[in-house]
Amino acid sequence: MEFEKYIDNYTIKEKLHRMFWNIFSYIFFKPFNLPIFKKWRILMLKLWGSKIGKGSVVHSSAKIWAPWNLEMGQRTCIGPHTIIYNPGKIILGNKVTISQYSYLCTATHNYESKLHTLYWKEIKINDYAWVAARAFVGPGVTIGEGAIVGATASVYKDVEAWTVVGGNPAQFIKKRILK
Amino acid sequence: MEFEKYIDNYTIKEKLHRMFWNIFSYIFFKPFNLPIFKKWRILMLKLWGSKIGKGSVVHSSAKIWAPWNLEMGQRTCIGPHTIIYNPGKIILGNKVTISQYSYLCTATHNYESKLHTLYWKEIKINDYAWVAARAFVGPGVTIGEGAIVGATASVYKDVEAWTVVGGNPAQFIKKRILK
Amino acid sequence: MEFEKYIDNYTIKEKLHRMFWNIFSYIFFKPFNLPIFKKWRILMLKLWGSKIGKGSVVHSSAKIWAPWNLEMGQRTCIGPHTIIYNPGKIILGNKVTISQYSYLCTATHNYESKLHTLYWKEIKINDYAWVAARAFVGPGVTIGEGAIVGATASVYKDVEAWTVVGGNPAQFIKKRILK
Repeated sequence: MEFEKYIDNYTIKEKLHRMFWNIFSYIFFKPFNLPIFKKWRILMLKLWGSKIGKGSVVHSSAKIWAPWNLEMGQRTCIGPHTIIYNPGKIILGNKVTISQYSYLCTATHNYESKLHTLYWKEIKINDYAWVAARAFVGPGVTIGEGAIVGATASVYKDVEAWTVVGGNPAQFIKKRILK
Repeated sequence: MEFEKYIDNYTIKEKLHRMFWNIFSYIFFKPFNLPIFKKWRILMLKLWGSKIGKGSVVHSSAKIWAPWNLEMGQRTCIGPHTIIYNPGKIILGNKVTISQYSYLCTATHNYESKLHTLYWKEIKINDYAWVAARAFVGPGVTIGEGAIVGATASVYKDVEAWTVVGGNPAQFIKKRILK
Repeated sequence: MEFEKYIDNYTIKEKLHRMFWNIFSYIFFKPFNLPIFKKWRILMLKLWGSKIGKGSVVHSSAKIWAPWNLEMGQRTCIGPHTIIYNPGKIILGNKVTISQYSYLCTATHNYESKLHTLYWKEIKINDYAWVAARAFVGPGVTIGEGAIVGATASVYKDVEAWTVVGGNPAQFIKKRILK
């Protein structure tokens, strides 16, 4: 029996774009991990198409799949060892915190198709939201203003503003009230 | 008070085998990450005892603990940053997808014994199944044909063919129907 | 609109301490991954303030955030690729096993404050306990003697002695009975 070849959705142009960014980031982004290079790293991402507001931080160990699909507001932080897997756009608001080892994942396979085609949907995380350590945010998810995705939680659906969710799959825990 | 020494189950021969593979893969496998080295990487794994069918792919960042305990069918893919921890055998069928950061774990400790002995059980993943991003598959698990383990799900029991499971611990979500 | 600056809680002295340890461990700890360097690695950690009992092991790929906040009893093991994130103290008893890829996390943000202040709470893991692969233990948690946190489980509350918990969030599964 023969099994048909797997087909992905990227053009050669897109693949080369990715390959050049990988090589570039290996030389000009990842090694610049000291705090004094904070602005250098932002500059490198902007050079490759990211839109980044004032005072935002991206750690050197963050894996940015496609800087051209990344938008960040002001004073937003992408923490160490995060996985920003963005064939689809990732849009972060202002004062958003993406904690260490968390994983924003915009792509999935269409498992109702025999071809198992890869496709993607935008992730949007609004102002003051916090995605805590080792959490996972799936394709197409919008996280409301001030919402908290607890450590190691997995989110596949939208999260309401100013709520705290946790667990896998993530459930509503409580409202977030600022004191 | 004295605490007794921890005893593992590996012979010196097995430990040396592992050590040589680690050194070898560091030089001849891991650095060959460009797409043009796809067949080279498969060749290296076969040299160390893997059985791999036509058209299958193993990414350079996949951590293969013991290639001699790995079997893959045709057109099966082991994705980037996956953990293939196989003191016990791992047998993947045809057209299986193991997505990035997922973890196939064949070993555990006997926690009913004072010695906390390490032991292992085979993992089997059948044709057309998909283990999605950052999922976990435990020792002894068989995943049925065409089944899907959702992103970040943790599976400790067998998964029925053509079903979709998710969460930690993984629960049945729905049947998978091809359109 | 202006967004106020994020303030963290570390003094410059603490930051330098951390930076020096990072550089030091990059040269004197991480590369020493062969089994013959087992005692060397323990010596390096003790040099930086860890308290470590007889016969304990720390793998070279374990990420120790602050050795000066780490206490280990006798014959305790911190496995490969673990994340020991300890701005707060982490105290491990005797014969404790911290398996590969698990994450002990002492810090969190005060999300009821507008400043989103970082703070930390001690983690304590008692004799004979086992934190299995890719599990997560949150700030302030005490894990009782002989308790087991199953693979990929996430623990945010204390775990009773000689019980087995699993899932995310972790639930009681059964008592652990030695045979």
